[in-house]
Amino acid sequence: MNLNEQIAALRERVRQQRPLLHHITNFVVMNDTANVTLHIGGLPVMAHSREEVAEMVAAAGALVLNPGTLSPEWVESMLVAGKRANELGIPIVLDPVGAGATTLRTTSNRRLLEELQIAIVRGNSGEIGALAGMGGVVKGVEAVVEADDPVAAAQELARRYGVVAAVTGRRDIVTDGKRVMMVDNGHEWLKTLTGTGCSATTVVAAFAAVEQDYVLATAAALACFGLAAELAAPQARGPASFKVAFYDAIYHLSTDQIRAGAKVTEAQM
Amino acid sequence: MNLNEQIAALRERVRQQRPLLHHITNFVVMNDTANVTLHIGGLPVMAHSREEVAEMVAAAGALVLNPGTLSPEWVESMLVAGKRANELGIPIVLDPVGAGATTLRTTSNRRLLEELQIAIVRGNSGEIGALAGMGGVVKGVEAVVEADDPVAAAQELARRYGVVAAVTGRRDIVTDGKRVMMVDNGHEWLKTLTGTGCSATTVVAAFAAVEQDYVLATAAALACFGLAAELAAPQARGPASFKVAFYDAIYHLSTDQIRAGAKVTEAQM
Amino acid sequence: MNLNEQIAALRERVRQQRPLLHHITNFVVMNDTANVTLHIGGLPVMAHSREEVAEMVAAAGALVLNPGTLSPEWVESMLVAGKRANELGIPIVLDPVGAGATTLRTTSNRRLLEELQIAIVRGNSGEIGALAGMGGVVKGVEAVVEADDPVAAAQELARRYGVVAAVTGRRDIVTDGKRVMMVDNGHEWLKTLTGTGCSATTVVAAFAAVEQDYVLATAAALACFGLAAELAAPQARGPASFKVAFYDAIYHLSTDQIRAGAKVTEAQM
Repeated sequence: MNLNEQIAALRERVRQQRPLLHHITNFVVMNDTANVTLHIGGLPVMAHSREEVAEMVAAAGALVLNPGTLSPEWVESMLVAGKRANELGIPIVLDPVGAGATTLRTTSNRRLLEELQIAIVRGNSGEIGALAGMGGVVKGVEAVVEADDPVAAAQELARRYGVVAAVTGRRDIVTDGKRVMMVDNGHEWLKTLTGTGCSATTVVAAFAAVEQDYVLATAAALACFGLAAELAAPQARGPASFKVAFYDAIYHLSTDQIRAGAKVTEAQM
Repeated sequence: MNLNEQIAALRERVRQQRPLLHHITNFVVMNDTANVTLHIGGLPVMAHSREEVAEMVAAAGALVLNPGTLSPEWVESMLVAGKRANELGIPIVLDPVGAGATTLRTTSNRRLLEELQIAIVRGNSGEIGALAGMGGVVKGVEAVVEADDPVAAAQELARRYGVVAAVTGRRDIVTDGKRVMMVDNGHEWLKTLTGTGCSATTVVAAFAAVEQDYVLATAAALACFGLAAELAAPQARGPASFKVAFYDAIYHLSTDQIRAGAKVTEAQM
Repeated sequence: MNLNEQIAALRERVRQQRPLLHHITNFVVMNDTANVTLHIGGLPVMAHSREEVAEMVAAAGALVLNPGTLSPEWVESMLVAGKRANELGIPIVLDPVGAGATTLRTTSNRRLLEELQIAIVRGNSGEIGALAGMGGVVKGVEAVVEADDPVAAAQELARRYGVVAAVTGRRDIVTDGKRVMMVDNGHEWLKTLTGTGCSATTVVAAFAAVEQDYVLATAAALACFGLAAELAAPQARGPASFKVAFYDAIYHLSTDQIRAGAKVTEAQM
């Protein structure tokens, strides 16, 4: 089975298994990521209360931690949920929104990486650079200066914390520190909408829930996400009509479309 | 006046009276339910702070309690608002999101039912089954196993707490424990979007604000909600374009459309 | 340069400078105002935690304070962020959502006006009337009775707190207590959606980040916002399709469209 066949098979597996994705995420994107979860084929639940997160995560196929509108109490809940996920072998996907922008964001994300066994981290070049200590400037939640060398930053982060690290941008990079996969799907319209990074993370979590090769799962998810954007773009008259077409495309994304359109390469390092 | 005429008359009454719907609801759907409130003809307000909920609810036509992203503090605010609503005779509509999925959700919803006089409870088959102790399994916020007998579960819940209970699904069931109304409007696209149950609850609250026969109000609201989905479906190319067409249809839903399309029957028990 | 040329130039300046707009805002509109920020040309960040707001605001071009779903803790964070913004000369734009509806809302907004140097306040007629003590009744977040004299109420508020006050409605009024500008752009569809006032405030903040004449910046922003609504209206089949077209129009709003369509007049008092 070639790579695009494998990606298409994973997308179908999400549809068939309908994994529950437990999100502890930011207020801005909750509605969007719940919808993206449904459209890709999973079941969403948003639950942040310390009193229930350990019980909720036990039913999940993956746990998404996204401290985009963090407070210390929510970070504590993320730790409670994450520790239980680790006990149960449920993969955790971290979206370090705004790491590098404030001390609270940088230290909270580092703490999650240190105290939990995170499976996958997906961020922009500035966030991953900031966490790896290898350049990148984050203003708010946007990378205004890229990491010096995104591949090296991702590899450093991957090795330091034993995670799969993904840097998304014009070209997405996915690595466990050794293997490196590149994804060349995507579209410029994605940058005109809030929360597209967060939504990409949700799709990564859906794939990680059904495939334990997290490098492959992450690259496959990012290819599907980017390909849906490409397929939607011709219907866009602006960012909002793009969003409608994009969500419709995620929902319909088919084996034939993935076979023809996914652009993933494994780098020879 | 036959039943469909009555339903159409209620829909117009909402437009004319513009009831304020005070929501204490979850983060995922706040934007959606505020828009649905406006589209059906009401005025939305979202207010959760213990310091203001008793004052805010006094101006409302109905109070919506939706612990979909609950925390103990928010449940306390729900109790404060609910007690004031009870004193003032303002109907409370409860959406027990995720009841059955965690202990916190089940006990919090039971506590709301025990300490407040709830007018109407609307949930999926799993949630109502869990609260009635009559089967149903909830994973996250989705009924993955239906209640053993949804009509019996709704009747049990209605009798136990003195509420009108509504189970929504392919066929919606509305009962006060004695009378049973069935609603056969709706569309499969609704299941591809987050928060459609919460939005249905909002429409129920709008109708309960203008009609004290809560069995009729609930069935009428669910018929209008489902009918708008049916009218929107031909314009859908996927879930997001369906959502746009659906909200437009809620706004425009007319007496003629309701006369022709509402499908409500009163069961002979 | 005539007035419409100036407005068009400001709109381009936002696109070029990409100001970061730090929002401490309500849960209902976070997604909408983040998208509107991107579409008008800025960078959004939503951050409310007391532990990071002072650091975050230091990178911002403007600070938006919107206590639409307020709690005492969030108001404290607004004060922390606002004091730092004042030290750094970063303009603060206040959206006093629901002032007049509850004691908590009225007193919290007054406290923000008293303890901070607010640059601009934008509200509906009821909110501004309530804060100025000059009539207006707010039900939830809607002005159900207009201020007795919106121009006089805005002028009173402007003088009392040394702010630019904007009352939006069929005709928008902007004043620093002496100069008065009127904006006649806008469309009825805006009233069918939640959070359009909040989104107007976001656009005002974007313009205030690039222009220190806050009367001009506010009037220009409101003209652009209203003009985008006018341009979108022909594509609307209802409120949701209007919203899609409106956001697309904000993104594309061009110098030629502003030259031809902005309707701002400076009143001779």
